This record gives sequence, structure tokens and C-alpha cells, in this order.
Amino acid sequence: MKKLGKQTIKFDLPPTIVDCASIVGPKEAQGPLHNYFDKTLDDEFWGEKSWEKAESKIIKETVNLAIQKSNIPLSQFDCIFAGDLLNQCISSSFGLRDFNLPFFGVFGACSTFVESLSLGAICIEGFANNVVCTTSSHFCSAEKQFRFPLELGNQRPPTSQWTVTGSGAAVLSKTGNGPFITHITPGKIIDMGIKDGNNMGAAMAPAFTDTLISHFQDTNRNPNYYDVIISGDLGHIGKDIAIDICKAQGYNIKDNYNDCGVLIFDKATQDTHSGGSGCGCCGSVFSGYFFKKLQKKEIKNILLIATGALMNSTSSQQGESIPGIAHAISIEL
Amino acid sequence: MKKLGKQTIKFDLPPTIVDCASIVGPKEAQGPLHNYFDKTLDDEFWGEKSWEKAESKIIKETVNLAIQKSNIPLSQFDCIFAGDLLNQCISSSFGLRDFNLPFFGVFGACSTFVESLSLGAICIEGFANNVVCTTSSHFCSAEKQFRFPLELGNQRPPTSQWTVTGSGAAVLSKTGNGPFITHITPGKIIDMGIKDGNNMGAAMAPAFTDTLISHFQDTNRNPNYYDVIISGDLGHIGKDIAIDICKAQGYNIKDNYNDCGVLIFDKATQDTHSGGSGCGCCGSVFSGYFFKKLQKKEIKNILLIATGALMNSTSSQQGESIPGIAHAISIEL
Repeated sequence: MKKLGKQTIKFDLPPTIVDCASIVGPKEAQGPLHNYFDKTLDDEFWGEKSWEKAESKIIKETVNLAIQKSNIPLSQFDCIFAGDLLNQCISSSFGLRDFNLPFFGVFGACSTFVESLSLGAICIEGFANNVVCTTSSHFCSAEKQFRFPLELGNQRPPTSQWTVTGSGAAVLSKTGNGPFITHITPGKIIDMGIKDGNNMGAAMAPAFTDTLISHFQDTNRNPNYYDVIISGDLGHIGKDIAIDICKAQGYNIKDNYNDCGVLIFDKATQDTHSGGSGCGCCGSVFSGYFFKKLQKKEIKNILLIATGALMNSTSSQQGESIPGIAHAISIEL
Repeated sequence: MKKLGKQTIKFDLPPTIVDCASIVGPKEAQGPLHNYFDKTLDDEFWGEKSWEKAESKIIKETVNLAIQKSNIPLSQFDCIFAGDLLNQCISSSFGLRDFNLPFFGVFGACSTFVESLSLGAICIEGFANNVVCTTSSHFCSAEKQFRFPLELGNQRPPTSQWTVTGSGAAVLSKTGNGPFITHITPGKIIDMGIKDGNNMGAAMAPAFTDTLISHFQDTNRNPNYYDVIISGDLGHIGKDIAIDICKAQGYNIKDNYNDCGVLIFDKATQDTHSGGSGCGCCGSVFSGYFFKKLQKKEIKNILLIATGALMNSTSSQQGESIPGIAHAISIEL
């Protein structure tokens, strides 16, 4: 692998995404992508006694499914990269404690899925034969932790997003026939001073465009190079802001750009306001939907840019703004 | 780099640790290692309005100092690896948002320092010229978040450890004269069923010995190979347990093994019970103390194994046990 321009890495031996798995909750199962997910749940508990335990079960079973679909024995995996939104990433550590594999915990808020794919890909070209990369989120555990007790039934402002209950997992390997991870562009922390914790799209959009434009500059590519450019979870409002910022910088992304948070819910009927969010949003939409489109050669490449808001409830209470980050990965047949 | 045995990675072109920096709080400044830290603080706030903001300032200034000491211009760094104990790792993301460098957030609880060094080293051999790896912790922000409000003045049981206020940062480079990172052994999640959140040493010791013994098996080395074997923060109780487990498995580590949490405070006078803990413990003790001993060639090699407890307060309230993890790194002249 080698550095390309300021912040992109180009792989000499691009890792293959052998297979992916996705499990989502009941609301996601009612959305437009319901046929694409490997498994959908009837309720938010999945037989567990708490939302946190349910989230751990979701990430565990998603990883199990991805490994099973890959047909690679567990003993041949070198390590797992995982992270989630819960404090101290407990969904990942409890969900994945029985896999008996070297474990790298990562945290990039909702950018975690692409962060884990990026580091997994670096390991594949470096030393590993097979790696699992995964993330999860859960609407109920996230609301409880970041906002209000669900039982209060608080009204949500129109700019707010709906944390996806779900998980995505990808198996990366040194050998295989693609789709290949050809480039990664890890993002910088960008803080434009947004303080509204109910408007994450606005907080994260500048990080998305910063990474996107850096990727274009480093690779000498332009928006038309990609069949689709996909952000993790800017939602409707963040998506519009991102299109505007790109236009102002001379990049027209309107024709082939969309957002996982926009795609996963139906705006007209599902009452999720600005759309989906959470580590599990990008994870499940890529693993469930876009990976299958790549497999079927309905698209030949994708630039996947997961976006994260690197705050917590204490930082907001202390009057801090919301730093954003976005990591990009170029996946090609 | 190549895989060695089951879970160790050996570097073909071992990255150099060019320099390190450490900043610690007032209690750490009164401990036995006070002369080794680059900067010590007079109080826990350092002019900030909250403990969280103080922790962000500590990690920011530690990274600034490490970069300054390395004599490498900021523009020549490829990325930062960082993480901490605060929810959603806000100490790192707020503290490091102004560096304008690609940022990889990592989380391994108190094992984070070695996790970040491990991933940083993989990137150096892979594509990067210069990388910063850092962590922080803060006694007051950690107590507030994980245990009780400090104002309550709760009694602490004898098994409890004292979260270190401090940060360590290391600059890794492709070129340089060492000390070199020659091997890493990333750890698996090990959960032996310990549920006492005030006895982290017991929860983490089995993870430490698992990684340690895996390292010996993978490298065909034995305890005598190293001048010092150092755990991150098992404290007095965890250290004794670790020695016993190793002995039962046929490894005598008693002669050259110690623990950062044991070293940083004076047991007789500082009332920290089982010793220090926190990401900043291993970070500051390695960066402040052991790195300087390597530089002066007072020791020629070290096996540094940072240990983490992958729980949060919700998981303990829900009756869960405490999964442990330990990542090892071999540093040699």
C-alpha cells in the first residue's frame, strides 16, 4: 500500500470483501430496504432482558452470519475490528467476547463501520489473511443514553435523526475475486461550531465534504468516476447541506450521491424526520443493500463515506460544539 | 510484517519510537516517578472549567509536546491514533480536533495506549512516515462517570484502583535509530466471570496472562528474554494474581515483571489502595519512565502489555461480568 496525495492510501494488493451480513430491527424491516437485510427482528428485545443485551446479541449474530456466509473457518481469522455507540463500546465487547479472536476496539461514532473496514484492509495487506469488521447501534439503547428515557415520549424536532437498530459485518480477505477495497481516505476531525445535538446532519456534513474532496484531489478522480457516492448517515438535512457545500467547491455530486440514513426509512410514512443514523445505519445498508448490488454487478464501484459526531451528552451539557469526522473507502469490482 | 504463530505480528521494518511525552496530575506528581514526567500539574483543572475539558487539554498538550520533541513538522504526520475512558472518547476528539490530521479513534479501555501503538506501527510499516499514538485519563472525570460523584466522599474498598490523571503520547516513524517496535501481540477478550467493578485487577489479570503466554509461544521467547515485562494497570492485586497464573502455567515472571499501576503511586503513603489505573497510567508511565530508560540504554528491551476492562456502569448494573483484554508490544533497542 502507498500514500496517495495528502491523506489517501492506495492498496497494491486490494483486499476482497468476501461477504457481508446484516440484521436490523422491526422499524428498519418496514422500510424500503426490507428485502435486502439477511434477518429482521420482530421487536427491539430479541428475547433479551435489556436493550443493551439485545444490541450485543445483534452484533454477535451478525458476525456469526458473516463468517458463516464467507465459508471461512473461524480459526482462520486473524482479528476483529468493532465498535458501537454505547458508552465504552459495550455492545461490541460483550457481543464479541466469545469469538476467541484478537480484538481491536475502534470508535468513530457513526463513522465506525468505515473506520473498521479501513483498518481491517490495512491489516489484510499487512499481515492478515481474514478479518471481520463490524458495528452496531440500537434505537432504544441510544435514545436512553444520548437523549431522554423513551418512556417520556418526548417530541423530536424535525432535524433529528432516528438511530437504526441493526448491525452490519464484512469479512475481508487477502484472496478472492472482489469487490475490492482499492483506496481509503481517513478523515480529519472537523468542527464548524454546530451545537444542536438534534441536528447531527449539519454537524457532520462539513466533515463529509472535507473527506470527499480530499479523496477526489488525492486520487485525481471526480464525482462521475463512481456509480454511487454514499454517506453514512447525514440524513435529509445533512445530505442537502453536503450537496450545497460540494457545489460551492466546484463538485457536482447531485446525480450519483445518496445517504444511508435517507435510504433506510421512508420519509413519507415512517416519521423518522431527517432519516436514519447510528453505526448500524451505514453498516446494515452497505452490508445489506450496496454489497448485494456490487455482487450482482448492478453497480461496479462505490465511494462509501461514513460520518460520525464525536460528542457525548456531557460535552453538550458543557456547551461544547459537535466535532464531526468522515472516513471514506473506495470499493470496486 | 508477517504473522508469527497464532496471534503475533513481527515487523520486517520495525518502526522507531522517535520520542514520547507525558503530562500528569498533582497526585501522580507526588509519586515515586515524579522526576520522569515532562510536566506535572498543580491541580486537576489546569485552568479549565470542567474535568472533561481539563482532560482534553492534557491530551492536547501531551501530543503537542511529543511532536515538538520529535522535531518532525506537523505537516509530515500521516495520522493520529487516540482513545480514552470518557463516554464516546470525548477527551481525545475534543483535545485533538485542532491538529488537522486524519484521526483514528480507538477504544480498549486501559489497554488503549498499546492498542494505538500497535495500529500505529502497522500503519508505519504499511504506508505512513510518522504517526502519533496517545491516550489520557483523569481521576475526577472517571470517578464521576464510572462510580460516584466525588463530592460524596465515598469510601473505596482495598481492591480498588486510582485512575491516573495524565496522558502519554508517542511519535512513531519509519526512519530512526530506535527503540524499535519489533512485535505486537493483540489480545483476545477474556471474561472469567469477575463482577466486582472495584476489583479490576482480578478481572484483567487473566487477559494479561493469556496475551503474555501467547506472545511467548508465538515468538519462542521466555520471560528471561526481556529486561522488563510491564503490565498496564493490574495494580497490586492483579499483579499478584498474574504472577500466580503464570507460575501455574510454567512461566516464572516474578524477577523482571512489574506494573505501571504499582509503580506510579507509593503504596505506603498515597492511599491509592491497589494502585493506579486508567489509559493515562500505562501511557504516562511508559512515555515518562520506561521510554527514558530505553533512551539511556538502562534497559535494552521491554514487553509492554496494557490491560483493559471492557465494561461500563450500565453493564455492571445489569449484572454482567467484566470482560478483560490485553495488548502486548515488544520494544527493543
